[in-house]
Amino acid sequence: MLAGLLNGKAISPQQPAIHIDDRGLLYGDGVFETMLLRAGRVRFIDDHLHRLQQGCERLKMSPPVIGQLREELQQLVQQHRDGIVKLILTRGRGGRGYRAVAGDATRLWQLFAPVASVGGGVSLRWCDTRLARNQALAGIKHLNRLEQVLAQSEWDDATINEGLMLDTESELISGTMGNVFLVLENVLVTPDLRFCGVHGVMRKNILRFAAALELPCEERAVRPEELHAASEVFITNAVRGIQPVTRLLPSILNGQQWTVGETTLRLIAKLNECHQENHAS
Amino acid sequence: MLAGLLNGKAISPQQPAIHIDDRGLLYGDGVFETMLLRAGRVRFIDDHLHRLQQGCERLKMSPPVIGQLREELQQLVQQHRDGIVKLILTRGRGGRGYRAVAGDATRLWQLFAPVASVGGGVSLRWCDTRLARNQALAGIKHLNRLEQVLAQSEWDDATINEGLMLDTESELISGTMGNVFLVLENVLVTPDLRFCGVHGVMRKNILRFAAALELPCEERAVRPEELHAASEVFITNAVRGIQPVTRLLPSILNGQQWTVGETTLRLIAKLNECHQENHAS
Repeated sequence: MLAGLLNGKAISPQQPAIHIDDRGLLYGDGVFETMLLRAGRVRFIDDHLHRLQQGCERLKMSPPVIGQLREELQQLVQQHRDGIVKLILTRGRGGRGYRAVAGDATRLWQLFAPVASVGGGVSLRWCDTRLARNQALAGIKHLNRLEQVLAQSEWDDATINEGLMLDTESELISGTMGNVFLVLENVLVTPDLRFCGVHGVMRKNILRFAAALELPCEERAVRPEELHAASEVFITNAVRGIQPVTRLLPSILNGQQWTVGETTLRLIAKLNECHQENHAS
Repeated sequence: MLAGLLNGKAISPQQPAIHIDDRGLLYGDGVFETMLLRAGRVRFIDDHLHRLQQGCERLKMSPPVIGQLREELQQLVQQHRDGIVKLILTRGRGGRGYRAVAGDATRLWQLFAPVASVGGGVSLRWCDTRLARNQALAGIKHLNRLEQVLAQSEWDDATINEGLMLDTESELISGTMGNVFLVLENVLVTPDLRFCGVHGVMRKNILRFAAALELPCEERAVRPEELHAASEVFITNAVRGIQPVTRLLPSILNGQQWTVGETTLRLIAKLNECHQENHAS
């Protein structure tokens, strides 16, 4: 960790900082955002703050004070140009019992060193761990993440970059840490996340780019076998951007492979363009 | 809080004690137990420790060192005779990312003052919030508890003691903080929890008592409408024991009511007897 801030005050990683009655610890009662700091700016900050607001609303938490969060973010990154910014917002401290009492949220900011990007394409596998369906929690980037933890524990082969997850009704939903897009007969397709999954900030922007590029696009239920029919596959997340998928391992189809296709390349170009616009403004 | 212990060291509630990279906070990555301390003994301690072990195994956490936990429990309660003991066991500290790295678990013990018992029967309501189905997490008392938090946020009428929850396929599962039992044509029935819910320590003991009393008993899928056909209803939890349900409010059936029936009374007597045996031994 390069820097940390708890409720506006600087903290170090070695210093215990969270109270034992914080509801984030007790129940996973909160939301989080993971963002890319690049050349002194946080990419898609408005989208991240918007999703945070929506998550708070859905979980009936007090609305975050956006101006305060923007100030704290400035304070966090002031001496840094690049990195990964993580914000955890919990419902705050509370006694024993699930019932939430009105109180101040806990605002925990952390800045980490940038990650090295995976060159070329990434390799995927299927996870056995399923995502449960619950419309009350679908789409929210909340702190109840045991399904993702269990899914990632399924493999330790470093050549596999990400695992794909189905829900309990065997629909394809997402990766463990990002959303998934397929190109099927020249249509860009991504799971609609009506029952589970996270509404990714990068996913939202891909859909916006696709509209701008007039690419036909569908958000809908996706069956896992459709992956094998896809001409292009990529995964997205706010930090790593668009990652073309080139391999599915170990595959029942003996190691399915994809090349990085035109749709993927056009969307990557659009994402890069969007960066340049940001930095020219 | 009357006393607290973190990884064997005494802590106070006012002192920040948890690191910001504890996986309990980051992902709800851990399990917990809530136990009754009465007359200097923790009720069903062996069952609690057994469930904790099973939860760790299911979540692929390191197995807890039971001897160490028993020693810490003695240390926690040494100056107290009665109260509620809560143990949170997280996967410990870890960096950014869902992937678990082998490390020491975080052991957080807290002792709270005893709760006043609800005299007579308790009143229930139905919750709108559903429990998601995921066999990978079913039965475990893990820290991903947003569904219970949302369910309890649905009412603030202090005359309602507990809310009943259905799963996403409309099976009756449990209360927000305890299991549920019905008596249907002289058979004791409780949901089988194959897809969700928590395998309660009190539930387990009720099933044991029922066997000892030769009460016919079924663990099976339960439809919500069966509640209305039940001659007796009670809810159970490790701290509050057996709570007879006398009212369902607000009811589409105009406030259904139950009296405290013979099966419930026999099980309560058996639970009390079991206490006396414990203290005579």
